[in-house]
Amino acid sequence: MTFPHDVTAMRRDLHSFPETAFLEYRTASLVAQRLTELGYSVRVGPEIMSMNDVRGLPTEEDIQAAQKDALANGADPFWLKRMPGGQTAVCGEIRRGEGPVVALRFDMDALPVHESSSSHHSPALGNFRSRHEGRMHACGHDGHTAIGLAVAEKLSRPEAEWKGTLRFIFQPAEEGGRGAQPIVSSGLLDDVDRFLATHLGCQLPSGQIALTADGFLWAEKWNVTFTGKAAHAAMCPEEGRNALLAAAIAVPGLYALPRDGQSDTRINVGLLQAGRARNVIADQAYLELELRASTREGLSRLTDGATRTLQGAALTQGVEVKIDIYGTAISAQSDPEIMERLRDAILGTESAAVIQSWPIGGGDDATFMMQRVQERGGKAGYCLFGADITAPHHASLFDFDETVLHRAVSVLSKFVELPA
Amino acid sequence: MTFPHDVTAMRRDLHSFPETAFLEYRTASLVAQRLTELGYSVRVGPEIMSMNDVRGLPTEEDIQAAQKDALANGADPFWLKRMPGGQTAVCGEIRRGEGPVVALRFDMDALPVHESSSSHHSPALGNFRSRHEGRMHACGHDGHTAIGLAVAEKLSRPEAEWKGTLRFIFQPAEEGGRGAQPIVSSGLLDDVDRFLATHLGCQLPSGQIALTADGFLWAEKWNVTFTGKAAHAAMCPEEGRNALLAAAIAVPGLYALPRDGQSDTRINVGLLQAGRARNVIADQAYLELELRASTREGLSRLTDGATRTLQGAALTQGVEVKIDIYGTAISAQSDPEIMERLRDAILGTESAAVIQSWPIGGGDDATFMMQRVQERGGKAGYCLFGADITAPHHASLFDFDETVLHRAVSVLSKFVELPA
Amino acid sequence: MTFPHDVTAMRRDLHSFPETAFLEYRTASLVAQRLTELGYSVRVGPEIMSMNDVRGLPTEEDIQAAQKDALANGADPFWLKRMPGGQTAVCGEIRRGEGPVVALRFDMDALPVHESSSSHHSPALGNFRSRHEGRMHACGHDGHTAIGLAVAEKLSRPEAEWKGTLRFIFQPAEEGGRGAQPIVSSGLLDDVDRFLATHLGCQLPSGQIALTADGFLWAEKWNVTFTGKAAHAAMCPEEGRNALLAAAIAVPGLYALPRDGQSDTRINVGLLQAGRARNVIADQAYLELELRASTREGLSRLTDGATRTLQGAALTQGVEVKIDIYGTAISAQSDPEIMERLRDAILGTESAAVIQSWPIGGGDDATFMMQRVQERGGKAGYCLFGADITAPHHASLFDFDETVLHRAVSVLSKFVELPA
Amino acid sequence: MTFPHDVTAMRRDLHSFPETAFLEYRTASLVAQRLTELGYSVRVGPEIMSMNDVRGLPTEEDIQAAQKDALANGADPFWLKRMPGGQTAVCGEIRRGEGPVVALRFDMDALPVHESSSSHHSPALGNFRSRHEGRMHACGHDGHTAIGLAVAEKLSRPEAEWKGTLRFIFQPAEEGGRGAQPIVSSGLLDDVDRFLATHLGCQLPSGQIALTADGFLWAEKWNVTFTGKAAHAAMCPEEGRNALLAAAIAVPGLYALPRDGQSDTRINVGLLQAGRARNVIADQAYLELELRASTREGLSRLTDGATRTLQGAALTQGVEVKIDIYGTAISAQSDPEIMERLRDAILGTESAAVIQSWPIGGGDDATFMMQRVQERGGKAGYCLFGADITAPHHASLFDFDETVLHRAVSVLSKFVELPA
Repeated sequence: MTFPHDVTAMRRDLHSFPETAFLEYRTASLVAQRLTELGYSVRVGPEIMSMNDVRGLPTEEDIQAAQKDALANGADPFWLKRMPGGQTAVCGEIRRGEGPVVALRFDMDALPVHESSSSHHSPALGNFRSRHEGRMHACGHDGHTAIGLAVAEKLSRPEAEWKGTLRFIFQPAEEGGRGAQPIVSSGLLDDVDRFLATHLGCQLPSGQIALTADGFLWAEKWNVTFTGKAAHAAMCPEEGRNALLAAAIAVPGLYALPRDGQSDTRINVGLLQAGRARNVIADQAYLELELRASTREGLSRLTDGATRTLQGAALTQGVEVKIDIYGTAISAQSDPEIMERLRDAILGTESAAVIQSWPIGGGDDATFMMQRVQERGGKAGYCLFGADITAPHHASLFDFDETVLHRAVSVLSKFVELPA
Repeated sequence: MTFPHDVTAMRRDLHSFPETAFLEYRTASLVAQRLTELGYSVRVGPEIMSMNDVRGLPTEEDIQAAQKDALANGADPFWLKRMPGGQTAVCGEIRRGEGPVVALRFDMDALPVHESSSSHHSPALGNFRSRHEGRMHACGHDGHTAIGLAVAEKLSRPEAEWKGTLRFIFQPAEEGGRGAQPIVSSGLLDDVDRFLATHLGCQLPSGQIALTADGFLWAEKWNVTFTGKAAHAAMCPEEGRNALLAAAIAVPGLYALPRDGQSDTRINVGLLQAGRARNVIADQAYLELELRASTREGLSRLTDGATRTLQGAALTQGVEVKIDIYGTAISAQSDPEIMERLRDAILGTESAAVIQSWPIGGGDDATFMMQRVQERGGKAGYCLFGADITAPHHASLFDFDETVLHRAVSVLSKFVELPA
Repeated sequence: MTFPHDVTAMRRDLHSFPETAFLEYRTASLVAQRLTELGYSVRVGPEIMSMNDVRGLPTEEDIQAAQKDALANGADPFWLKRMPGGQTAVCGEIRRGEGPVVALRFDMDALPVHESSSSHHSPALGNFRSRHEGRMHACGHDGHTAIGLAVAEKLSRPEAEWKGTLRFIFQPAEEGGRGAQPIVSSGLLDDVDRFLATHLGCQLPSGQIALTADGFLWAEKWNVTFTGKAAHAAMCPEEGRNALLAAAIAVPGLYALPRDGQSDTRINVGLLQAGRARNVIADQAYLELELRASTREGLSRLTDGATRTLQGAALTQGVEVKIDIYGTAISAQSDPEIMERLRDAILGTESAAVIQSWPIGGGDDATFMMQRVQERGGKAGYCLFGADITAPHHASLFDFDETVLHRAVSVLSKFVELPA
Repeated sequence: MTFPHDVTAMRRDLHSFPETAFLEYRTASLVAQRLTELGYSVRVGPEIMSMNDVRGLPTEEDIQAAQKDALANGADPFWLKRMPGGQTAVCGEIRRGEGPVVALRFDMDALPVHESSSSHHSPALGNFRSRHEGRMHACGHDGHTAIGLAVAEKLSRPEAEWKGTLRFIFQPAEEGGRGAQPIVSSGLLDDVDRFLATHLGCQLPSGQIALTADGFLWAEKWNVTFTGKAAHAAMCPEEGRNALLAAAIAVPGLYALPRDGQSDTRINVGLLQAGRARNVIADQAYLELELRASTREGLSRLTDGATRTLQGAALTQGVEVKIDIYGTAISAQSDPEIMERLRDAILGTESAAVIQSWPIGGGDDATFMMQRVQERGGKAGYCLFGADITAPHHASLFDFDETVLHRAVSVLSKFVELPA
């Protein structure tokens, strides 16, 4: 197997092998290998991730299966060994004389979404549809990784005009917001002077670039368990305590939490699994949900309401409920210095239309990195590269206009190369 | 491994290795082996099951895993080979001169219930708790199988006083009501003159025997699928069509279907699985439910209401819904001739209290066998052997008073031995 | 106005002027007047009702409006004055020599149901449809009152063959189960030797009479109030606490309370009023519901579940909930002596088919009277007179086959006249 | 009775006699009387309202009761006669030489909210709490009316410096958004050059004035009726079709309509009335709800979703549903010319802080007037006068800092007096 060098070809290769959070073994090992070839000094896994308190790690069984798959599809066992336990982050670094420490962040993970096989879906037509059924690059991270590697290649050339330290961070598990924090905790961001993270798509049309994203939401991700009591559903239903019914009652109640006059909010129950057998009153139910708000106070009102809704639903059925906070997200703001630098980079390279700010829509745990950089006196930013999309992010027909790839490579390279 | 001969020891051995519907490989092969040793001519699998239209068969993968487990725990490969594709029924038959064809039915399957490991739970204390985590003999079929084998042994002795043809039917998949019909379809009941099926427990106290069970319910078992549209839950929730929410709205509506002034009814949604990822609007949901009623008309009203409830819930979310009928159950009545013969058998053997009729509570697809026997001019019955229980049927703390085992063996043997 | 003597004409007259619970002023005063004319000594209102703890009395305003209406439609002011505060019970009594005290109970109240004006509806066609819009004799109590008066007339004649004390009790407020208890508390039943109450219809066909009703249910009637906090629904919905939403969440949960393997149950939320204005988060909601079960234990499980359901729904919205027990009902059994006497009465008069027992379906607070009579050593019974009906009881198209009226008059008269 | 002249005293007098939409008879007649006294030519009722297609008019009975109350509390019968059928709008106009037509809009209606009697509630403490139980000035329209009259008085003085035509419009029924359209339809806005409407409070602190309000929402107000079938709830619940349950199922579904990534949305079910009697399956239910969105497309998605939700809920119970559109609201934008003039007015009078724009939160049907003025070539605006509030708008503890009254009078007078 040969991993290509062209940014579009790279993206398509990565698209074919989507790997979900903390299981990006093929992707990460290809990234590490490539960065090494380009002359970067590479650190991976435990060197740049501090995994205390990371939630939602896959099981060891899933990790081993993912590693096996990765090996079967071209991963290098050298790198796999250095990324135990789902620690799939990769960092490549080069220094050139005196100058600022500049870090760029790219995410690598895919989603547990089934990719369409419709003939209208370009990846199907172009023969780079997911080869892992039930997983899909439905948010463009395949593009991000390809862009990152292409920028790394361009800036590794002797003619590239920059000074200082250049650091590429390839992050796992952006979906679910769990990958950034362990990297932050490892100290990898502590000395960064300029930080930039990026996303493509987000309903910004092709040919437009937003200097910053707004609408990063405060968020909590919860795993909720209801525990009731089983009983024969026909013989003595009155003896049971119905956990499935409690969960079902809770769900519309959660979506029905009040809109907030002072905060934009989002609620989703993305997973519900309950019961064991048709003729047994279900004694357990499990939900995965997320709560988001544009302000810290709005999120607080939302979590209060969701707690009451879950406890109330449990009470109706006489079952127990347990809420585990699985993840959190914070908001962040781009520094004007980064935004101006980015504007100059765009003007210096592309005829792209400059948009001041554009809503991110979802969220990105790059905010944890931005916060750390800003706390330590550095400047941080987050920009969006417009790309026409064929379906909403996370949908099974999602695809994006690949012309964004070259545009992003040019702009990001220029961003680094601009004189201080 | 030696499979014991004592009825209590047999029950405990079977209890340790619970096998769910159509996967009763260890149980069935031990039954076949024992019947053979006792001199019965034994037929298994395709010889006595016509599997057309059987719903809910396990996957071939599950079947192979079950066979592997069975072999590891003492099953005979000779019999396994003869029971392909989940066809785990066993029939043993002996003839002695002229006389009626008498058939007794025993069921063998366990449930997908987690068995308690509490020290108050006798199987845990007595070291015969389930060795298959997540599966459990929580309805006493381990006892049924042990009783059946003990009766077969007793009646195989030369001193046993009976004439005619004696047929023992060991049925798979009583739970879910799928095992009886393929046996009926094979013709195995067509020449039967006297048929008796039985259940232990059912909240009838130890020391009491009911000549018939009442309250067999008409039933339908449905598998329901909602199909919506995925979307990013924060960026564009309005683009999604939420199948999980549709299912959640349907569930309380199903339980809330009206009580019926002319029919006793039961409703249970025993399984609900929906969604894929926390931050994706769920595009699919799957439910397993059952509807039961004491009359055919009551069941018809219930299925009408459930259909409307599911379609209405789908409409609220703009999603599609598909209802598959997975199984059905019918009611049946014991013939007075069988009940009188049973009364005589009890009076001739035991000081047990005779109860005329007792509610079965759930159901039993032995009714399909009863119906066939009665259609063909034979007489059929269904009796209950009282046994104090420690928790409701299907609960993880279920256990029964084992003194019922010897009592049932005596009465059933006498039932066969009584002169015409 | 002349109140007719023919039983059918009486029924139709009463049908035209339906009066709901504790507001039966026209009906009661006509009854009192007629009984007086027939030679009965008549007691009404506070003489035979002890109103402590009676729940759900109409307001004084409603009472005055009902009295005004009654006067306008032929009621006698003499009697109205003697029935203050909704105390509309009437008792007529005659003694003839030595003999048992025999009491018959008839109920007089109508329902808050809109009567159909369809040309297929006999009362509309026959010009005796309700003249009080929104109220209707939809349960046959008009027939009961007419039967009672006709029996009273027949037995008041010199040729009637009976000895002892004969007491006719005309009860208000059977619907809602509130009228019998205050009569019991007054002591009116304490010396009764034989008591019989009756109902017509109940899906028993014309020409059949059931010696007893079964299926009297234990019941509780609750009034439930949710209290939240109002807020501007667009400006700051997050400030509100939504009582309407809490009530809406509770309702399906109540209907979804588990069917009971040991008890037949019924649940109904018959009234829900919530909110004040479209653009205000509703700060209050009010429900009227009833819970019924065939056993005392079943009712207890039901009230536990309903309490949890209401409290849980309140918790989800952070609102307060208050449950008031508005009424209760108890079960009762007919004494065999009464049933045999009734059988003899039927055989002595009519070619009606005798049914041993028939389900009452709903309930009747005559059970409080039966209980008191039985406690004091008397014998009590409850019988059903079959009558074909055109629609379910309480429906706006309800009507019954009036041939039942003469049949009931004959049988009840004979019941009294039979020698001890 | 003497209606005071001081703006604070006026406000308190009006606060004591809250009158809801189209029933503002006391208020309107006092306004008409005062304007007449001040020298304005006054038009009322049908002269300035075209009531075709106005929805939600009170009943004639309610109108007569309101007129009676108004007369009892000081209204002038001269004016009442001129405002038949809920047509309670008042317009006062003066001309002074050549100049633009300037119109100011003030609303007069109160809400069906119960006012707190807590000693912490200033109107209770100050003895000007509502004397009409169940109605309350909980949105500050009492202040608006008082401000309008005080401005009218000030500008009627000879020393006031303005030229042209000055028109004061006192509008009924702003709550529910029904009062502005009939005034627009009468043509009263057709010749207006400058239009200004205003609101106090809205969570803008005292001492601040916003030059425009943003966040006017597109809205629809629906009245929804479910029609089912009554039946006896215990005897034959299966015969009923439960409209109350359908409504209850719909309510959480409505609140659970998806948040919209492209539009801010609001949903409220403010009223729910269902059922008739506890033991009857409810055959009807009635809801009043409103749907709002910040964009026309967002509202369209919301109404689609709400339609599906209501139809789906109806389908679950086999009942009919009917949706009546009771009212609509549109968005509007202030013209920069009006905002600049307002800024000058503030700077010329007060030390108030100028805020460019502030969210209106709810809505105001003054947008229909703004739209008309702008369509006809005039300039229109909407400003907010900050006032600290004690509780959210529409809450029973709502009150505002009365210092806003004088400030608003000064600024609005100056707004008119500034040279073109």
